[in-house]
Amino acid sequence: MKRASPENSTSKPESNGSPTITDIALAAGVNVATVSRALRGVPGKVSARRREEIERIAREMGYRPNALAASLRTRQSNLAAIIVPDLGNPVFGPMVQGIERSLRARGHLSLIVQTPSDPKERESLIVALASRQVSGLMILAAENHDPLLHAARRSNLPTVLVNRGSGDRQFAAVVNDDRESVRQVLEHLTGLGHRHIAHVAGPGTSSTGSARRVAFEQMARELNLTTSTVVESLAFTREAGRAATEQLMADGAPFTAIFAANDLLALGALDVLRARKLAVPAQVSLVGHNDMPLVDLINPPLTTVRIALEEMSEQAAALFIERIDSPDATPITRMLLPTLVVRESTAPPAA
Amino acid sequence: MKRASPENSTSKPESNGSPTITDIALAAGVNVATVSRALRGVPGKVSARRREEIERIAREMGYRPNALAASLRTRQSNLAAIIVPDLGNPVFGPMVQGIERSLRARGHLSLIVQTPSDPKERESLIVALASRQVSGLMILAAENHDPLLHAARRSNLPTVLVNRGSGDRQFAAVVNDDRESVRQVLEHLTGLGHRHIAHVAGPGTSSTGSARRVAFEQMARELNLTTSTVVESLAFTREAGRAATEQLMADGAPFTAIFAANDLLALGALDVLRARKLAVPAQVSLVGHNDMPLVDLINPPLTTVRIALEEMSEQAAALFIERIDSPDATPITRMLLPTLVVRESTAPPAA
Repeated sequence: MKRASPENSTSKPESNGSPTITDIALAAGVNVATVSRALRGVPGKVSARRREEIERIAREMGYRPNALAASLRTRQSNLAAIIVPDLGNPVFGPMVQGIERSLRARGHLSLIVQTPSDPKERESLIVALASRQVSGLMILAAENHDPLLHAARRSNLPTVLVNRGSGDRQFAAVVNDDRESVRQVLEHLTGLGHRHIAHVAGPGTSSTGSARRVAFEQMARELNLTTSTVVESLAFTREAGRAATEQLMADGAPFTAIFAANDLLALGALDVLRARKLAVPAQVSLVGHNDMPLVDLINPPLTTVRIALEEMSEQAAALFIERIDSPDATPITRMLLPTLVVRESTAPPAA
Repeated sequence: MKRASPENSTSKPESNGSPTITDIALAAGVNVATVSRALRGVPGKVSARRREEIERIAREMGYRPNALAASLRTRQSNLAAIIVPDLGNPVFGPMVQGIERSLRARGHLSLIVQTPSDPKERESLIVALASRQVSGLMILAAENHDPLLHAARRSNLPTVLVNRGSGDRQFAAVVNDDRESVRQVLEHLTGLGHRHIAHVAGPGTSSTGSARRVAFEQMARELNLTTSTVVESLAFTREAGRAATEQLMADGAPFTAIFAANDLLALGALDVLRARKLAVPAQVSLVGHNDMPLVDLINPPLTTVRIALEEMSEQAAALFIERIDSPDATPITRMLLPTLVVRESTAPPAA
């Protein structure tokens, strides 16, 4: 490992004349964390003599802290934890990116953590994050009665739920209007002439899964559908969508259209329809939910419900900052309107 | 906020008789972070009297720490930071999930962080992570001369590069054999009869982008292709793939097949071919790289190179633990073999 003196430092950033913490670390012969602690004045971690030396070197090198480094010094923490259930579901990538971008603009770094499947590990996760003094939690996980939420409440950390409701209004939340999603889907399908519609529901433990299912069942009655069938999947995955659709087929109730509670479930349904040589949309119409990346490219391009992803990310970040600034204010829920995106997987039923 | 005494606690986990840190926090009337600190014996954070009280309550409740909580107490940190360039690219979801699963089995929690685009923010990120005492870094970002790597070196944190090489062997790394990827693609395409092949390369700043491009150019010469053209994209995204393919079209060199350096670039190429009514594979064959989720469902299903994702995740986690246990050992690079997955986007060239 090389050490450079300030005079012959090769580590000067090219983008900007101001030296970085790394440059100072190189010049002082210490690691970057020590420089950071010294410049933040964290007590007890760095000796007074060492701190003075590091401050002197930083001064001599003309160090000007950037915005992020400044917030590192002036706040207890600028690290927000974003908790997501499943990065294997491509809808979360854009959602997390949007939140991260919005938080970064407000001076917060984001740490992303996936929800452990074991309930006790979920609790340990919150404990670990609280011990590391994250500034707050953004929870995109979506289970009812989740030990994560219990631990989040006990942690006293500012918390915002994203794309999930807790039902009990104890947390600030930004959610999609799932009733409106279902209304748009059923209006589209009945408008095409479908009277036999099946719903591949999300897991009943998930707030979005159960909200969409409840709305489907209620509206199916209101619309007087000839047949409405529901099968519940075990997870929001393509594999679980396959299993649920196989069950739907085995049950034998007639249907000319399937509405799946998310796009991955719809793709699992598509796998089964293909395997059984049922043409989409000629024999069965198919609708998903989320408009996740690439569903426009599949065969046939998927009709789906687009959630207001950019607005959701922006609102989530805004609510998060509000919780930090006013932890005692009453938590509010913001509900966003979805849009149906009609592509080629839906058509009138075969005569 | 409710507080429950141990006798009437409603928070007993259903899965297991042992109380959790949250149960203890409820019983002691403090928050979970305080319990965690007390049980870990972090000096100066919790008063001796309060600590003794919390320890007594934990004992009386029969608290048995789980593996994760135990590692929280016994190690300085069990939080690994996974740094990814772009969660909008669906190949990273499965990769991160695999690494997280492997690390969790070894008692480490994972924090996922996206690379900031600003070079100075990248450095601040490493400083912030080092200050939060993460146990080490797993870097999936893929740029050459990245300030992130410079800061990682200075941080003295155990570091493993995943799916990228630094060239200079200063870090442990697990990479795909990109030469072998290109060999398999070109063997497949020339085997079908293609002699005019274009390469939509990844950004030259990325190690995988430049490795695949160099291999393509060398093998195109060795195979005596009649025409071989390279266009370089600005990012590993569908949008950048569109732009690069438009440029390829504008350049006017003949080609009957396109090999794109990743699947998103291939999907961008597909957008352009479609817009120009060029049939895939009848008029142009198309090959991607990564076999990311859903490319089997697009129209036509994409021929692509599958990287050994599971093995990569497993090896990355193993290398990471090695670096922590033996920080002074010479860093090694493990190279994994890819597999060509032939689907329907490739066929013999039109006569």
